[in-house]
Amino acid sequence: MPIYNAPVKEMLFVLNEMLNLNKYSNLPGYADATPDMVEAILEEGAKICENELAPLNLSGDIEGCVRHDDGSVTTPKGFKEAYNKYKEGGWTGLSHNPKYGGQGLPHVIGFCMQEMMSSANMAFTMYPGLSAGAMASIDLDASDELKQKFLPKMVAGDWTGTMNLTEPHCGTDLGLMRTKAEPNDDGSHAITGTKIFISAGEHDLADNIIHLVLARITGAPEGVKGISLFIVPKYLVNEDGSLGEHNKLICGSIEEKMGIHANSTCTMNFDGATGYLVGTEHKGLRAMFTMMNHARTGVAVQGYAQSEVSYQNAVAYANDRIQGRSLTGAKNPDKAADTLMVHPDVRRMLMNAKSFNEAARAASLWCALLIDLSSKAETEEERQWADDIVGLLTPVMKGVFTDRGYEFATTNQQVFGGHGYISEHGMGQFVRDARIAQIYEGANGIQALDLVGRKLPANGGRAIQALFKHIGSFISDNKDNEKMTPFTGPLSAALTDLQGGTMWLMQNAMQNPDHAGAASTPYMHLMGHVLLAFQWAQMAKISLEQLDAGTTDPTFYENKIITGRFYMRHRLPETKALLAELQAGADDMMALDAANF
Amino acid sequence: MPIYNAPVKEMLFVLNEMLNLNKYSNLPGYADATPDMVEAILEEGAKICENELAPLNLSGDIEGCVRHDDGSVTTPKGFKEAYNKYKEGGWTGLSHNPKYGGQGLPHVIGFCMQEMMSSANMAFTMYPGLSAGAMASIDLDASDELKQKFLPKMVAGDWTGTMNLTEPHCGTDLGLMRTKAEPNDDGSHAITGTKIFISAGEHDLADNIIHLVLARITGAPEGVKGISLFIVPKYLVNEDGSLGEHNKLICGSIEEKMGIHANSTCTMNFDGATGYLVGTEHKGLRAMFTMMNHARTGVAVQGYAQSEVSYQNAVAYANDRIQGRSLTGAKNPDKAADTLMVHPDVRRMLMNAKSFNEAARAASLWCALLIDLSSKAETEEERQWADDIVGLLTPVMKGVFTDRGYEFATTNQQVFGGHGYISEHGMGQFVRDARIAQIYEGANGIQALDLVGRKLPANGGRAIQALFKHIGSFISDNKDNEKMTPFTGPLSAALTDLQGGTMWLMQNAMQNPDHAGAASTPYMHLMGHVLLAFQWAQMAKISLEQLDAGTTDPTFYENKIITGRFYMRHRLPETKALLAELQAGADDMMALDAANF
Repeated sequence: MPIYNAPVKEMLFVLNEMLNLNKYSNLPGYADATPDMVEAILEEGAKICENELAPLNLSGDIEGCVRHDDGSVTTPKGFKEAYNKYKEGGWTGLSHNPKYGGQGLPHVIGFCMQEMMSSANMAFTMYPGLSAGAMASIDLDASDELKQKFLPKMVAGDWTGTMNLTEPHCGTDLGLMRTKAEPNDDGSHAITGTKIFISAGEHDLADNIIHLVLARITGAPEGVKGISLFIVPKYLVNEDGSLGEHNKLICGSIEEKMGIHANSTCTMNFDGATGYLVGTEHKGLRAMFTMMNHARTGVAVQGYAQSEVSYQNAVAYANDRIQGRSLTGAKNPDKAADTLMVHPDVRRMLMNAKSFNEAARAASLWCALLIDLSSKAETEEERQWADDIVGLLTPVMKGVFTDRGYEFATTNQQVFGGHGYISEHGMGQFVRDARIAQIYEGANGIQALDLVGRKLPANGGRAIQALFKHIGSFISDNKDNEKMTPFTGPLSAALTDLQGGTMWLMQNAMQNPDHAGAASTPYMHLMGHVLLAFQWAQMAKISLEQLDAGTTDPTFYENKIITGRFYMRHRLPETKALLAELQAGADDMMALDAANF
Repeated sequence: MPIYNAPVKEMLFVLNEMLNLNKYSNLPGYADATPDMVEAILEEGAKICENELAPLNLSGDIEGCVRHDDGSVTTPKGFKEAYNKYKEGGWTGLSHNPKYGGQGLPHVIGFCMQEMMSSANMAFTMYPGLSAGAMASIDLDASDELKQKFLPKMVAGDWTGTMNLTEPHCGTDLGLMRTKAEPNDDGSHAITGTKIFISAGEHDLADNIIHLVLARITGAPEGVKGISLFIVPKYLVNEDGSLGEHNKLICGSIEEKMGIHANSTCTMNFDGATGYLVGTEHKGLRAMFTMMNHARTGVAVQGYAQSEVSYQNAVAYANDRIQGRSLTGAKNPDKAADTLMVHPDVRRMLMNAKSFNEAARAASLWCALLIDLSSKAETEEERQWADDIVGLLTPVMKGVFTDRGYEFATTNQQVFGGHGYISEHGMGQFVRDARIAQIYEGANGIQALDLVGRKLPANGGRAIQALFKHIGSFISDNKDNEKMTPFTGPLSAALTDLQGGTMWLMQNAMQNPDHAGAASTPYMHLMGHVLLAFQWAQMAKISLEQLDAGTTDPTFYENKIITGRFYMRHRLPETKALLAELQAGADDMMALDAANF
């Protein structure tokens, strides 16, 4: 069975040494997040992930969810018990509003927990994960009455939530949506329509399921400007908070799919179900998108979480399996063969994953801090800066981290040779589970379009200029530090490539918008490289300082420098190819007639 | 259900216009392969692939193989009937020795059929595929008596064959092998041991299964120099050719695995089973490796076959699904949305696959011709040249084409968005099936090591020098042709990168063999790019000539030029990054202690 060891030490390094969380104790929620408290929370979270969730990952994949004739769904063996422990531990309200019973802890803590849970059991994690998204939407836009009615139970984990967007004929293009909402006399609406791909849409973990549903009120404008958001609970809720009758909705089927078998992916049929408008009529997409932007950072975490757990298993296998001899002479002369770890190509695969995992975690936790700063920082200037950066980087993290998560789950599986293809080792599951993260919450091509079409030009390019300045300042601050040259040199070259790509887009995308579309994915990956290289440069700086100061843990910091150097020399040269690819533009891909593909 | 249309026109373009098969009518077997005959064979082959094999692909994946308590295995519904049609059509003996009933047709025809079959149903194709490998081994090294006893039935498809190499503790490192062979009084041997991952090891398609088993004769030298090859039939064969008693072997279990569910992957237990020595004692690896080299080209074909079939489905979906609007204004103003095909990023994914598929097919068929030339060409010089090139390119094709096959099966799945993740569309199956090709017949890291450690330095680098000269001549022959500049320019730059990488290896790998290991995979991919770009340059040249000559099918040739230009501008710049990566060497990946990963 696969192993999992929560990388708490790595997380604390980012939180304490890179982000200096203690600097932010003036922010709401951060005062409680002292280093000791954070460590205690993460250690406690690690336990539930390692001991309760990880052991159910493989069995959950094999067993899957079962839908019964009455529309009810049973989750795999052990899921309900694990969910109860998770709920009783208070984890469902970790980062949520204290007003409704949440602990209001910083997003950075929530992101760490999200990573550990996703590594341990991605399919399980989606049940509370979807619920968190639904809570955020309700908290953002619903009336106080609705909040009071639904949020306390959701924060407590007694009820879970979902997001209902996709319909059979419309996914990305929500303007095509057909689900309709007819006003009832009591102010509620009757919701009718079919939604597909509803993760956690029906299950046996919670007493009630609060569906957030996008629908079109009778007479609403066409397209995306006529879509409203509704709360549609599985069971209606009485005045006293007790559960009333079953709402007019049912899970019509669950999908057979490539992975995340233990999460029920439902077709939801609404047949005049009672729904409550959230926010303003026809403005449903706004709330949904705000929430989705944050959900996308959560999916980014899933990317490196799958790379991390599959990496840990590949390392264990490479240190255990003996096969062949080192190219430089036997390293285990008393055994019949050396371990896989002596082979440079095996190490190449492992270093690829390791150098990604650690930098992606650092980038992601930085953005988690920025999410809090964007609403909680003291000055408007700070809030805007944080919001700009996190808005710009959200599609990059979602797209790049999930593409890389799948790539490295695959190469980690490759370390196992033929054994990696056999189900019982669980390496194929990591690949299959990682695959969905490239697709849902906006397929990665949509992330790339969001980046070049929306985030880049917004406010006259303010966000990208801020990012250039931020990274540029780091480079120039360290330009006289010779030991940093192996990091600032390549980072500077990659930043120049990114600036070149940005310039090319500015000069060409207006004249022919197809150039923006054609360049979007390589541009996104180019920015991803710069983001990760920037993390490595910062980690190297801290590590060099620690070593100079005579740290008691030199190995930890030396390994950071080695891993960072690997990234700079082995991975970062890709920026040159990406720049050339994006500058090749749209002509070659638009030239073929559709019929000639 | 997924579609499949055999690309016979594309194959004929390569055979007739690129390889000029008619030039080789002096070679044994080629005289029969007139253009008309080849077209007729491929059209007939296409029918069985499209009509019999493809419709069983998805159902075979869902149903899988079933092992019964007596060790017998049932293949999915329809497989036996399809196999009988395949056998009755004479396809099992297509490229095999006429002496034993084969048709002795050129390898190029066999490769085309292999592609069509792998696209249509990869799991099915492995049953006759393994059989072909076993026949080649027997034909190469067994005594006439053994050949007469086994080959006619195998060529006819009445019996199938397998290869038994791997044991639980040894895959790549065959020196660790433990299966033993004890001499019997009658000259046969008693084989005892356990083999794992035996594809097609047990099934219900044929009357007998002829296992080729590697084992160690009592008292044999240690390591790879003490391994012999044996024929171990499932049923012993009487003097008159009728089947005798069941040999002392059984399928102990079949594996649950990530894909190719319809092929039985068996653990085979041999308990004093009767085996017949093939070739010389202790020289079993030689025959197995000769055969495996050819088998590796077959796996390379599986790589682009999965990319091709998933591409065809992605194109159909992109032309059918309407979602969103073109960035340059509505293209379907009378419909609610445009097709996916208007989006540059969707086309980017499709062009990536298309520009790979067509060039990989061309490269692969070129090598198929070289395989025949290596044994059938008139002069020793020609035979050696062909053998050098095909030996050099075999690991490149196996490693690169299967890595890309998996990559593009994945991006073709991505075109479907969420629907790609749902089993019923079959896109996930293409990905899961493609995945094994990166692993079996020598994991791709082993291919890369074979390339840099064996094929590159062999005979003082004769093969790589021959390749450089061959491509270099093409470039200089066309240097005055301005219309060819968009092709010869990038090809020349990529060739320079490959020469730079080769030089770096020569200068560094001797001094530290770990540099060879560290550089092997990027070097292999760098050579893969040059190989594919060379195919595009040749296809462009033919297409330009056809257009100049006023061809009646200008669209076909114009599309070739567009697709080739896409490859040159969008894919080929990767050589720069690969060169930088390989020149970074081994230091960064060998620096970490094994315990610190």
